[in-house]
Amino acid sequence: MGSTWGNRLRISVYGESHGPAIGVLIDGLPAGIAIDEDRIIKEMKRRAPGSQAGSTSRKEPDLPTVLSGLFNGKTTGTPLAVEILNTNQHSSDYDGFTVTPRPGHADYAARLRYKMNNDPRGSGHFSGRLTAPVLFAGAIAKQVLRACCGAEVYGHIIQIGRVTGTSWDEVETPVIPKEGAFAYENTSVAARMEAEIEAARADQDSVGGVVEVMGNGFPGGIGSPMWDTVESAFAQLMFGVPAVKGVSFGSGFAVASRRGSQNNDHLAFQDGKLRMTTNHGGGFEGGISNGMPILAQVAFKPTPSIGKEQDTVNLETKENVKIEIQGRHDACIVPRALPVAEACLALAMLDAYLGKGGNHA
Amino acid sequence: MGSTWGNRLRISVYGESHGPAIGVLIDGLPAGIAIDEDRIIKEMKRRAPGSQAGSTSRKEPDLPTVLSGLFNGKTTGTPLAVEILNTNQHSSDYDGFTVTPRPGHADYAARLRYKMNNDPRGSGHFSGRLTAPVLFAGAIAKQVLRACCGAEVYGHIIQIGRVTGTSWDEVETPVIPKEGAFAYENTSVAARMEAEIEAARADQDSVGGVVEVMGNGFPGGIGSPMWDTVESAFAQLMFGVPAVKGVSFGSGFAVASRRGSQNNDHLAFQDGKLRMTTNHGGGFEGGISNGMPILAQVAFKPTPSIGKEQDTVNLETKENVKIEIQGRHDACIVPRALPVAEACLALAMLDAYLGKGGNHA
Amino acid sequence: MGSTWGNRLRISVYGESHGPAIGVLIDGLPAGIAIDEDRIIKEMKRRAPGSQAGSTSRKEPDLPTVLSGLFNGKTTGTPLAVEILNTNQHSSDYDGFTVTPRPGHADYAARLRYKMNNDPRGSGHFSGRLTAPVLFAGAIAKQVLRACCGAEVYGHIIQIGRVTGTSWDEVETPVIPKEGAFAYENTSVAARMEAEIEAARADQDSVGGVVEVMGNGFPGGIGSPMWDTVESAFAQLMFGVPAVKGVSFGSGFAVASRRGSQNNDHLAFQDGKLRMTTNHGGGFEGGISNGMPILAQVAFKPTPSIGKEQDTVNLETKENVKIEIQGRHDACIVPRALPVAEACLALAMLDAYLGKGGNHA
Amino acid sequence: MGSTWGNRLRISVYGESHGPAIGVLIDGLPAGIAIDEDRIIKEMKRRAPGSQAGSTSRKEPDLPTVLSGLFNGKTTGTPLAVEILNTNQHSSDYDGFTVTPRPGHADYAARLRYKMNNDPRGSGHFSGRLTAPVLFAGAIAKQVLRACCGAEVYGHIIQIGRVTGTSWDEVETPVIPKEGAFAYENTSVAARMEAEIEAARADQDSVGGVVEVMGNGFPGGIGSPMWDTVESAFAQLMFGVPAVKGVSFGSGFAVASRRGSQNNDHLAFQDGKLRMTTNHGGGFEGGISNGMPILAQVAFKPTPSIGKEQDTVNLETKENVKIEIQGRHDACIVPRALPVAEACLALAMLDAYLGKGGNHA
Repeated sequence: MGSTWGNRLRISVYGESHGPAIGVLIDGLPAGIAIDEDRIIKEMKRRAPGSQAGSTSRKEPDLPTVLSGLFNGKTTGTPLAVEILNTNQHSSDYDGFTVTPRPGHADYAARLRYKMNNDPRGSGHFSGRLTAPVLFAGAIAKQVLRACCGAEVYGHIIQIGRVTGTSWDEVETPVIPKEGAFAYENTSVAARMEAEIEAARADQDSVGGVVEVMGNGFPGGIGSPMWDTVESAFAQLMFGVPAVKGVSFGSGFAVASRRGSQNNDHLAFQDGKLRMTTNHGGGFEGGISNGMPILAQVAFKPTPSIGKEQDTVNLETKENVKIEIQGRHDACIVPRALPVAEACLALAMLDAYLGKGGNHA
Repeated sequence: MGSTWGNRLRISVYGESHGPAIGVLIDGLPAGIAIDEDRIIKEMKRRAPGSQAGSTSRKEPDLPTVLSGLFNGKTTGTPLAVEILNTNQHSSDYDGFTVTPRPGHADYAARLRYKMNNDPRGSGHFSGRLTAPVLFAGAIAKQVLRACCGAEVYGHIIQIGRVTGTSWDEVETPVIPKEGAFAYENTSVAARMEAEIEAARADQDSVGGVVEVMGNGFPGGIGSPMWDTVESAFAQLMFGVPAVKGVSFGSGFAVASRRGSQNNDHLAFQDGKLRMTTNHGGGFEGGISNGMPILAQVAFKPTPSIGKEQDTVNLETKENVKIEIQGRHDACIVPRALPVAEACLALAMLDAYLGKGGNHA
Repeated sequence: MGSTWGNRLRISVYGESHGPAIGVLIDGLPAGIAIDEDRIIKEMKRRAPGSQAGSTSRKEPDLPTVLSGLFNGKTTGTPLAVEILNTNQHSSDYDGFTVTPRPGHADYAARLRYKMNNDPRGSGHFSGRLTAPVLFAGAIAKQVLRACCGAEVYGHIIQIGRVTGTSWDEVETPVIPKEGAFAYENTSVAARMEAEIEAARADQDSVGGVVEVMGNGFPGGIGSPMWDTVESAFAQLMFGVPAVKGVSFGSGFAVASRRGSQNNDHLAFQDGKLRMTTNHGGGFEGGISNGMPILAQVAFKPTPSIGKEQDTVNLETKENVKIEIQGRHDACIVPRALPVAEACLALAMLDAYLGKGGNHA
Repeated sequence: MGSTWGNRLRISVYGESHGPAIGVLIDGLPAGIAIDEDRIIKEMKRRAPGSQAGSTSRKEPDLPTVLSGLFNGKTTGTPLAVEILNTNQHSSDYDGFTVTPRPGHADYAARLRYKMNNDPRGSGHFSGRLTAPVLFAGAIAKQVLRACCGAEVYGHIIQIGRVTGTSWDEVETPVIPKEGAFAYENTSVAARMEAEIEAARADQDSVGGVVEVMGNGFPGGIGSPMWDTVESAFAQLMFGVPAVKGVSFGSGFAVASRRGSQNNDHLAFQDGKLRMTTNHGGGFEGGISNGMPILAQVAFKPTPSIGKEQDTVNLETKENVKIEIQGRHDACIVPRALPVAEACLALAMLDAYLGKGGNHA
């Protein structure tokens, strides 16, 4: 049941990279929410191959078709199903990876798990392409959140390789990136990040990075301790993306080096309004939202598919061999992963929000 | 349903810090596993207050009573329930925190969530004390894992404040700490970590840190993409502990600054045995275990309860006020949190392992 | 995970008949609901041994102790845990049933399932005694339902052996039994039912029956098709009671013999108020509540423990043998099962109700 | 989350009767099971409109397209998605039912639930058409069961209106119907059942019935008390079909009128083989399978859509009105419902079976 997630909202993702289609079912949506399909397409284009610096040269339209759950432009409240047809596959690019596993890929682990029965073409169900339906679900979640409580989700890139930007945890007033923009607000940092990607590509190599996502306008008091919280839900979702190796909230791992007196967020009335003077907790205390902006960071490893020669094995001959991975690959997936992280935050927020009015008296 | 976790194994935690008892139900255990209760008590003593450097001066026996699920020293396969009586409470220490929320605590968020109905004494259900039943469940999980597949779970501290140790990701052959030992293998680093804690305590302050946990001997091919994996399960569990602000695997956030050629774990036959020459993935590819040691890091914020004066508000008078938190608090919870992190890893591993033989053909 | 049930509300039952205690955890309750513990005790007395015609001569106080989740007489919104200590056990009564399984009991199936590791004393976790914590949870659910939406749950017995009463499906205005009363509203039928039980007891035999439960005042529009409905939830709960062999709603199996024109419930405005002129659907259409009283029937088999000689086998010698079951047994469990069925209906209704306000816009 | 079911196996159904497509996702299948698609088509034809006595004159091909989860004719172990395109819809037949609800249909309850946002055409997500994807999933489950443990699922009709057949509970050696046959083994009873249907049709009316399903060859010791059993799972599934009003096992409601000495299934060694001499428990004790054939009955109400004039209301004018439902309807859905009940039993059995090897040591 690995491809199903959620408590009140439930998404179920299916598909293999080179099968007929991929898609997602979304169950548990409230009825009567108007959905703007153009906004969804815009979101999906942010993730689509070829749309971003560092991305593969494949061009896939990734146009979703809604099969159920929308009627007269509004959610019906019954399951919303969407499918995205697979086109433009070059299956031969992937031949042999069950025998000669690509380093850093799921080829070998999948072989152990599925005993050679999984579809290996394009990494099958492990493909990064499976984030497209997650993104679609998140784009729906963004619109439902906006309609239900006015919350908005944003994101930016805070690290590409050795180039680091500034976390929104450290700034007084975050600058929200323009929708759909290549999301580095500081243009000189952005330029250095792009250069970092291009340098990797030139070396037939790849590079990792960190994105930061924010949820603004989310009400306080949402979530249930211990494990039904936006924090646990977001982390669970993000680690479903194969490239993710770290998830943190607020000040993240930096809290470890601090004193309590530095790290505690203090409450204050300012102009008659209650707020916290810092947001090191990233919008949560005890897992429950406290009304401050939700802030999370996600670390992505460098794309494992690289043209450079690497060491691996032939599992049939039991010999050590070399591999050079051909094909069209991203030198850096971080720009395309950013909207996916935003989608995951929106899903985690909506799942928690839908508890309100039920057991949240 | 926030206090329930798991898919095949399910743990349900209950209790308030100053109520009659706390406890946990564990459902889904295989029948017939011999349980050594002494080992469990030993594990629980590692977390018990007063047992570790930096911990509170409270002494609580924390002795668990098993109410069901064990018969003749073995698991019955039906729910295993354990309760831990609460004793030695000083409830008056906590008066008034719903009106004057402690910075960095769940007091304010809980007020929004529960509309003043939750038990505020000792942080109620948000208390770090609730990690004792999680630890108990993890101690059971460790023994079941050992019996079923020979896997073992260890941990050590890799950061206290500004003092950092060495991640097992960076060493050729990790030195496993002796069971129950204060888990810094390098004695000079350990001494500096202890000094960091004592310095914080002397300032009526607290300090954070990072633990690293390892699962050795776990078979490859366990887990189901996308979200039914040890990675997603461990992250979900850990973020249920209020002090946790970051979770990562393998090389963690360090992957962001690397090239793919540096970060990919390469496969090799060495002396006829297949292994990876590095373990930056921390034992997973695509979320599925690959037979390498499982490696994860968890960042804990400094204990929010400090004696130092802090800013907060009075929610009734709507005034900004000062607060000095009296009582017996940990200057650093990281040493006591280490066995909890190990427990969470054991639970996540066992939950995934129990899928084997079912849909893992 | 067999002993855990529910979606928004989650109950987890534990315990063996002759272990130290049995109990239940209830997670997902709204905060701030005042709980009258006396009413709960009254409900539990309806199920307690020795309290009803036909019941065993054992006297067990079955007094529950709440360990968490209540504060100042109100629900906290965090898990409510209750335990019921086991006393008055005669474990020797049950020796040998893993070798010589009692007909109609779970002895043999449990042996296959748990490979001799389950606790066989008093049927262990299969004991009808485990319905006490379910009843406790249902008694809480009744009070929460009453507070949240004014709904009430009642029940009566409609069959004991060959003596049948009248279903509320067939009467214009159901007579609600007095709380705690031996629930046959027609005294002459009640007398014949009691006689049926006494006749079975005199023969060292037992007898089955059918109960009917009703939920009044439940709002329409609750539940989500296809499987998150009061109907599916109630059936799932009831079949968790080992003696239950049938569950039906409204007119139940009688619908099979009808024409559509007879069976359809017709809508009508009467005195300006919309209602259905019959209630053959038992309060549901398409699984969704329609505002009519919820009506369900549950068939209980005769207690399998009887003094009469029966055929069985010795699983060690592989011989056919005779068995006469000694001990204190119910000649008919139906009177004690009635409040359990009411409890299950209340739980199913509350679980569904808590979806309201979340995805029920 | 109403349209998602299962624990180890999870099915998620989507679609509206008159939307672009309906379908189902099946997650949790073991990898490497060969799937015979022809057998699935055969199963689906048993449910297809126009294929059976009493069924509507609509002809829908109902041909499923597998989008993922199969590779080289075998399950991959990742989600298996199937879609069935909707064709041949006459949407205008259904205009106005949100204003003038059809008696016995979900129109009114759905209006309360979804506040006029659900798709009303052809009953939308409440349509009996949604049983097609359930049947597909069950046809897969049948093949997986056969491959994993040799179990087979059959069914027959035991009641149409006032005509009753013989339950397999009452016969020594059940005659298994030929696959795909109109499943009344006794031809004279079958003829009377068909006549009962034709009489209802002639009156522009409909008629209900009861089906009985059997699972042969299922191992004993499967399931976990209290609620993770084939019984609870099957009941939960069946009540997801809008027309179902009763579910029972073994002797069903007949157990209520019996003595324990009559009803208990006695164990015996016969020719060295252990079996029960009767099967009143329908293959379960305490919810756990005991190795005897699984036997269950399901009561279906008469199709609510009838041509006969009926009373209902106009919810806008608040007047009582008459309704005559035009269109192509089944005079009796029981023959088409039979394979759906078999599918549900196969799904419940497989979901339970997949626990084996995990926590079933």
